[in-house]
Amino acid sequence: MQFSSKLLEEAVNEFSKLPGIGSKTALRLVLHLLNQRQDEVDRFGNTLIKLRKEIKFCTNCGNISDTPVCTICSHTKRERSLVCVVEDSRDVMAIENTNQFNGLYHVLNGLISPMEGIGPSDLNIERLVERVRLGEVSEVILALNPTIEGDTTIFYLYKKLKDFDIKVTTIARGIAFGGEIEYADEVTLGRSIMTRVPYENSLLR
Amino acid sequence: MQFSSKLLEEAVNEFSKLPGIGSKTALRLVLHLLNQRQDEVDRFGNTLIKLRKEIKFCTNCGNISDTPVCTICSHTKRERSLVCVVEDSRDVMAIENTNQFNGLYHVLNGLISPMEGIGPSDLNIERLVERVRLGEVSEVILALNPTIEGDTTIFYLYKKLKDFDIKVTTIARGIAFGGEIEYADEVTLGRSIMTRVPYENSLLR
Repeated sequence: MQFSSKLLEEAVNEFSKLPGIGSKTALRLVLHLLNQRQDEVDRFGNTLIKLRKEIKFCTNCGNISDTPVCTICSHTKRERSLVCVVEDSRDVMAIENTNQFNGLYHVLNGLISPMEGIGPSDLNIERLVERVRLGEVSEVILALNPTIEGDTTIFYLYKKLKDFDIKVTTIARGIAFGGEIEYADEVTLGRSIMTRVPYENSLLR
Repeated sequence: MQFSSKLLEEAVNEFSKLPGIGSKTALRLVLHLLNQRQDEVDRFGNTLIKLRKEIKFCTNCGNISDTPVCTICSHTKRERSLVCVVEDSRDVMAIENTNQFNGLYHVLNGLISPMEGIGPSDLNIERLVERVRLGEVSEVILALNPTIEGDTTIFYLYKKLKDFDIKVTTIARGIAFGGEIEYADEVTLGRSIMTRVPYENSLLR
């Protein structure tokens, strides 16, 4: 792309670094910002800078937080012995939206990925083992995406945790509610038969 | 969405204001920025603020520029009597990329849209009429999108310009190169027959 302005080009380049934003989308977003008032653009830019500068991560679970211990970990009514391990804060929000989980979380902040050079030491794993060692935890639920990276991480965590006197579980895989058997892939369908559940347990509550 | 942090929520809200960015995409982008270094996020935010603050628009054609008169308008080798009217800077870049146009531009910075409350006085139209009145222009090419807003704007501009001793043209509509006749819509196909051109003129040069 040929730009009529150096400033414009720099702004488009910055936006293009974001995941899933190509140069055409970046240009559209930058031109949109150019049509906004100066104070609105200032707020946009400064909010992001401030976020990066002041954000904290919960010292217990690693979730994004405004306080040293997040609102979930400091909540008195939650089941402290149940810990759900997730990849990032987005998954915490997704599970919280279901209203089906009343335990605590542990945010890994990524998955093991040799391809991207991310090893176990880059993730928030030591702290998880420490939480288990302290004896507060009775069950760890591994709620990671069913990808190569997710499965690798699950396998690694299972090896780390299996010698403790706790339950290690993974979330159920199967046909989604509203999904059609005919269109399900073979692995999912096969697994959903292997891991079938008693009818009474399958009802939505 | 329930956020674990006020700062995070504010940043996601700011991103969600951009066109085509929903709250889930906004969250993904914000979490990406959180994983970048502080100086990278600072550069991202400050580049946008600086762009909005320091950007200039060419006093002749209205295109985005770092200087009072843009590089195209101040170019000595360009055909000054030919003016191509476009909606915004993106269209200037698209036409420049074709290497088929050697005239000047005039950027309206929008289209007439009663639905969005944008009238002729909100656009860079007076300056176009002034350029024509000054007698430098022999042809105005209206290169606007074939939408209701585009056609309305073309009609308005044509009325404003028709009494001057200049040619007013629009870009050709028809079947795209590589497009198939079978799949073209009726209006385009019908028009492409009505406005057929001699074979010699149709060859790509």
